[in-house]
Amino acid sequence: MKRYGFLGLGIMGSAMAGRLVAAGLDVTVWNRTAEKCLPLVEKGASQGSSPAEVMARCDITLAMVSDPAAATALCFDAGGILEGVAPGKAYIDFSTVDPATTVRIGEAVTGRGGRFLEGPVSGSKKPAEDGTLVFLCAGDQSLYREAAPVLGVMGKKSYCFKEVGQGAQMKLIVNMLLGTVMTSLGEGLALGDKAGLQMADILEVLTQGPLDNPLFRMKGPQMIDNNYATAFPLKHMQKDLRLALQLGDTVGQSLFTAGAANNLFLKARQTGSGDEDFAAVFKTIKS
Amino acid sequence: MKRYGFLGLGIMGSAMAGRLVAAGLDVTVWNRTAEKCLPLVEKGASQGSSPAEVMARCDITLAMVSDPAAATALCFDAGGILEGVAPGKAYIDFSTVDPATTVRIGEAVTGRGGRFLEGPVSGSKKPAEDGTLVFLCAGDQSLYREAAPVLGVMGKKSYCFKEVGQGAQMKLIVNMLLGTVMTSLGEGLALGDKAGLQMADILEVLTQGPLDNPLFRMKGPQMIDNNYATAFPLKHMQKDLRLALQLGDTVGQSLFTAGAANNLFLKARQTGSGDEDFAAVFKTIKS
Amino acid sequence: MKRYGFLGLGIMGSAMAGRLVAAGLDVTVWNRTAEKCLPLVEKGASQGSSPAEVMARCDITLAMVSDPAAATALCFDAGGILEGVAPGKAYIDFSTVDPATTVRIGEAVTGRGGRFLEGPVSGSKKPAEDGTLVFLCAGDQSLYREAAPVLGVMGKKSYCFKEVGQGAQMKLIVNMLLGTVMTSLGEGLALGDKAGLQMADILEVLTQGPLDNPLFRMKGPQMIDNNYATAFPLKHMQKDLRLALQLGDTVGQSLFTAGAANNLFLKARQTGSGDEDFAAVFKTIKS
Amino acid sequence: MKRYGFLGLGIMGSAMAGRLVAAGLDVTVWNRTAEKCLPLVEKGASQGSSPAEVMARCDITLAMVSDPAAATALCFDAGGILEGVAPGKAYIDFSTVDPATTVRIGEAVTGRGGRFLEGPVSGSKKPAEDGTLVFLCAGDQSLYREAAPVLGVMGKKSYCFKEVGQGAQMKLIVNMLLGTVMTSLGEGLALGDKAGLQMADILEVLTQGPLDNPLFRMKGPQMIDNNYATAFPLKHMQKDLRLALQLGDTVGQSLFTAGAANNLFLKARQTGSGDEDFAAVFKTIKS
Repeated sequence: MKRYGFLGLGIMGSAMAGRLVAAGLDVTVWNRTAEKCLPLVEKGASQGSSPAEVMARCDITLAMVSDPAAATALCFDAGGILEGVAPGKAYIDFSTVDPATTVRIGEAVTGRGGRFLEGPVSGSKKPAEDGTLVFLCAGDQSLYREAAPVLGVMGKKSYCFKEVGQGAQMKLIVNMLLGTVMTSLGEGLALGDKAGLQMADILEVLTQGPLDNPLFRMKGPQMIDNNYATAFPLKHMQKDLRLALQLGDTVGQSLFTAGAANNLFLKARQTGSGDEDFAAVFKTIKS
Repeated sequence: MKRYGFLGLGIMGSAMAGRLVAAGLDVTVWNRTAEKCLPLVEKGASQGSSPAEVMARCDITLAMVSDPAAATALCFDAGGILEGVAPGKAYIDFSTVDPATTVRIGEAVTGRGGRFLEGPVSGSKKPAEDGTLVFLCAGDQSLYREAAPVLGVMGKKSYCFKEVGQGAQMKLIVNMLLGTVMTSLGEGLALGDKAGLQMADILEVLTQGPLDNPLFRMKGPQMIDNNYATAFPLKHMQKDLRLALQLGDTVGQSLFTAGAANNLFLKARQTGSGDEDFAAVFKTIKS
Repeated sequence: MKRYGFLGLGIMGSAMAGRLVAAGLDVTVWNRTAEKCLPLVEKGASQGSSPAEVMARCDITLAMVSDPAAATALCFDAGGILEGVAPGKAYIDFSTVDPATTVRIGEAVTGRGGRFLEGPVSGSKKPAEDGTLVFLCAGDQSLYREAAPVLGVMGKKSYCFKEVGQGAQMKLIVNMLLGTVMTSLGEGLALGDKAGLQMADILEVLTQGPLDNPLFRMKGPQMIDNNYATAFPLKHMQKDLRLALQLGDTVGQSLFTAGAANNLFLKARQTGSGDEDFAAVFKTIKS
Repeated sequence: MKRYGFLGLGIMGSAMAGRLVAAGLDVTVWNRTAEKCLPLVEKGASQGSSPAEVMARCDITLAMVSDPAAATALCFDAGGILEGVAPGKAYIDFSTVDPATTVRIGEAVTGRGGRFLEGPVSGSKKPAEDGTLVFLCAGDQSLYREAAPVLGVMGKKSYCFKEVGQGAQMKLIVNMLLGTVMTSLGEGLALGDKAGLQMADILEVLTQGPLDNPLFRMKGPQMIDNNYATAFPLKHMQKDLRLALQLGDTVGQSLFTAGAANNLFLKARQTGSGDEDFAAVFKTIKS
């Protein structure tokens, strides 16, 4: 039976690893603060002592940490996965990082004979619990095929692009669209409101047309209610917009609407909405 | 039995009036070039000699012409509907016009004792034929209730806002969103393409997330194929963006992303894409 | 001796007409509130009873009123200059109006055999008193040559473009640049300030480089002091930006930086700075 | 007599070092390709064998290389200046680099007991030859005072800000303004041209108003002539705009007009104008 490792048991990681354990797989978990391993150990997981040890013990080690710094530490720090890599060992990093970071991690792993797949996810807590995440993988195609069943336990859909870094790029582009389209919705609602229309009417009319989408249905009513309970923090959206603009700079693509949206998110971040939901850009738009 | 008039038998008007005739209603049609009345007359419609005469003969006269100039002529020219207005007579104008024009027409009609409803539609040829249009009405609420059955023959949904002009404003806002979101999609596809991703992959990933919407599904593949067969001409979209920006100026709402989108549409118009589909803004974005 | 009329004795008109009277010219003045004529009458001017009467009495009638509505009234209202126009009579309108308004006035005057020159000015109260205005004329070239001496009494420089409306367009373009460059200065100062630089240092460094200009020298220190005593009201600058953007729409020129600046001015207007100096856009930029 | 080193003899460095030699100072020069030292040696300069050796031999070593990579190499590579640093030795880097790079170099130098001043310059070849550069120094204030006479040989004006990095920031802000204002000028000229005005008239009218500045006088006529002979390459301007936007992101300042300008420069770079003068953004604007 194949042995799986899972590093990083935050909100997302706990839910994802939980599904693997519930599916009866052989899972060894590790987390920086060890007590978070307990609930999974109680359900049957083993507990590892370090990323290196998990990597050495398992066939495929999965990781889900919060940002590029954490992902980098997991790989390069003392006791990190690099110390456990051996030929044939596989590492799949689901963390959302910038393309440069994932490329650096990938090269380090493959440089020691390991196999690497980046796999940033689309979806948050609820889809992680329900196993309906979307995986934007890139890298080792054979590892992708081998990991398909595990991905299927955690997600409803997965992709595998050619080059490591393209998963991160895809995620950036999707988030750039989310941020820009959210800004556009905010402008439409604010314009209608100032003109004397009911914002709820605008939302309803939108559901009847070609732009009808889950984002508007979910966030629109919250914006009308000035409810910005955080699903995805505004400061993270602004960071992703910035990274997407940098990618545009690198490849030579001007991004006028995304650039305008980024400036509004930046203003929103600066005026105290960084930790609110990214829909809070609406406050800056209508102010 | 209530008598209905229908003025303007272009692509949209013919389809809409056709549904009324097919539903067995008493319909009198008129068109500037009279021969376009024939197909409907053959199916049972009467033919009127002028807008004034239709207005005078019918209880509720409907109109669907191409632009503010045509809508204005229909109302104010010699033989126009104003000459047929009498107390109680109702006029419903489905033409897409700017808020100022619809207000002017509405005041002229009600100034002579008539009842007025603006009703710009969302939807094009196919929904007109299928009776699945969406009506964004505003004005006389009792007329709206009275006309509900007829609207139901032509559309799947209708709204009625308070003040004449708000239907036009709602349509502007919806179109502003369509134009801006389309621009954002174009930026995302162009960015991914230059970065080495497959545009079809981007579209597919988008369908898995919260932005999934009919517009992306319909236009995205056409953009990849550089197919800009015209469903909604780019120059009309640019005009609507301009009108929305003017509305923003009037009511004091800054519109950064819509303003950026308008500039791209303006450049696209200027470089020869005015008569192509509005998705052709993609050519300007990626150039 | 040639007879001159002068209509409109606000801050600008009084100063301009005052210079004509001081130069010993035969001047007949008129103002909507007649008492404003007194100071000039005391210095030797005659007083007219209506624009029509001034126009009829004088060879060249000059006008300087506050906005398009006032300029239009001066021309078309009862007792307006049109009633005094006769073949050979000349009318020069210095009022700042949009191109469409000046064209309409010009056509009305020449349609009755009169001669017309638009002449919007660059410069405010002080240059008007000092006779250092700049005139952006357009229209009848022979009238321009004939009026050159009078323009020389009031200004340091004048231009004459071919077509009526081009003076107004030139002024719009100059103001568009003023507004956009002011916005850019504001962004530079705010960026430096947040980064820990002294704004006064930035201004001083700018004076050493190729961007050194009177606007920065004059407005920069005021911006640092949050002193927005009104020289040119922000709401008028925003209006000119809007008109420039409309001109861009008409002729097919995208205007990305001017569009962004307009949105910032609009936000500034909306948040209560409309009557402050246009440099107050800085408050919106740094907020 | 104090001994001066000068590293980097490109167009700028040669002219600057040349002025020091001509002023009779004791100067030791070094350049990566050694033959460029000859003309200066012939005029009395000594030639060093490596940056480290020059640093060790001289009291104050000056450097002027082309970009952050070269400045970094000069400092950190084998034989670099770090190997020659000793307590009291002074290093002044005139190269234009980003704030992070200059901070890193400064910390390395002072970490070994050296004294450091960054001193990016405003001005190009001609001012370098004429000794009319402007120095935007930051760092060690006593070194600045000590170096004042040398700076006076090469420049007309110098500043010294507190923290290393602020010189680079100041330069970024000045260049951001240059780029954005140039874009604004381009929009004004293109708008006027399409409206039927003469661009030369616009430029002349601008010289009469509060925006009159050397940049418009110098670049404006070149833009009309489509002459983009390179004084400052467009790709470098775009890079500086990008760095300024990143600084804005770091400190929380939204930059709407600079962001729009950056997108236009990016498009210009992408369409082949990267090596032309930065005024070539005009081609993208009017296209």
